[in-house]
Amino acid sequence: MTAAGHPGLFITFEGGDGAGKTTQASLLEDWLTDAGRPVVRTREPGGTEVGTLIRDIVLHHRGEVAPRAEALLYAADRAHHVETVVRPALERGDVVIQDRYLDSSIAYQGAGRVLGRDEVRDLSLWATAGLLPDLTVLLDLDPTVARQRLDADEKPFDRLEAERETFHVRVREEFLALAAAEPARFLVLDATLPAAELTAAVRDRVAGLLG
Amino acid sequence: MTAAGHPGLFITFEGGDGAGKTTQASLLEDWLTDAGRPVVRTREPGGTEVGTLIRDIVLHHRGEVAPRAEALLYAADRAHHVETVVRPALERGDVVIQDRYLDSSIAYQGAGRVLGRDEVRDLSLWATAGLLPDLTVLLDLDPTVARQRLDADEKPFDRLEAERETFHVRVREEFLALAAAEPARFLVLDATLPAAELTAAVRDRVAGLLG
Repeated sequence: MTAAGHPGLFITFEGGDGAGKTTQASLLEDWLTDAGRPVVRTREPGGTEVGTLIRDIVLHHRGEVAPRAEALLYAADRAHHVETVVRPALERGDVVIQDRYLDSSIAYQGAGRVLGRDEVRDLSLWATAGLLPDLTVLLDLDPTVARQRLDADEKPFDRLEAERETFHVRVREEFLALAAAEPARFLVLDATLPAAELTAAVRDRVAGLLG
Repeated sequence: MTAAGHPGLFITFEGGDGAGKTTQASLLEDWLTDAGRPVVRTREPGGTEVGTLIRDIVLHHRGEVAPRAEALLYAADRAHHVETVVRPALERGDVVIQDRYLDSSIAYQGAGRVLGRDEVRDLSLWATAGLLPDLTVLLDLDPTVARQRLDADEKPFDRLEAERETFHVRVREEFLALAAAEPARFLVLDATLPAAELTAAVRDRVAGLLG
């Protein structure tokens, strides 16, 4: 049982789109599964059926969603996801590997939009009854490089991806500030490093936490 | 301009299902419209397109929605509705007549479920940046009588309506406690009175507010 009050391990991956979160999360999952650890791989928004419905509203609604409503919808997704997926897994002793969690909300909503970062953080902590990750891997990437990676994929942009470049610069700064404020929880990695180096750094830290 | 910081008048109708909120709200709307006042008639949940999508998730999702998620979804609906419908109308000087607002959230969520009433109230006030009604009409009704009225309608029950009788008894007590705590905002009426008497009592109070 960790200080977090559950026998599992809660690992989140954060960073802008195109930073490689999905790749690194998958590689970590494979490594832990091969070692015989039960792993639950999930994501926000949209890690549950209810979450998928919420995600559809936020990302694909034709009109504008009011900023406070958007923050509350993400928090609702988080509350349902934590209650029905994440906490049960952690209480079983599983490792939960998750794409995006409250740091994304703070970075995107708090800094990028009109809401304060403290209120967005408080909202997330209320939604989850205070659940923080044991480890948060921040894949840090210059937004210009991220843009080139996403363009290469030729996928259509969703509403968030289409926001202005300056928005993504502010988001990056917010992620780095969050990491600086909680160095024990964060592992910050330069996402331009070769994938194998990133993978090794993540494994090192996770191995230490698994003791 | 009232003390509320806008030139309009914000009137909400509260009470259990079957108490006659819709009937009384419509009669008030007709009376004000006939007198030449611009009126916006609306409701929560579901007063906007986004709100309708949210309402569908809360009321008709096949599985359970986690309690904090449910509270956050209602708050998101409220945030979007207030920002896009209610505040613009109040700032134009219109009368907004609304079925259900934050008192419903507190009574149903705070008392009836597992969440505290102060946290549900705080959530609603954050969602709306602090918007309280100028007048809240509480149509008070014994849940057994309400049940008989709804049965007579032969409409299918939604998830909330199907909850146990004891739940509705607690909700009624919560509504009455909220009214007792803010007597200046609330007008409490016995919903078993003849409709014409209820209508007259509402008009009296509204006329006073329109001064």
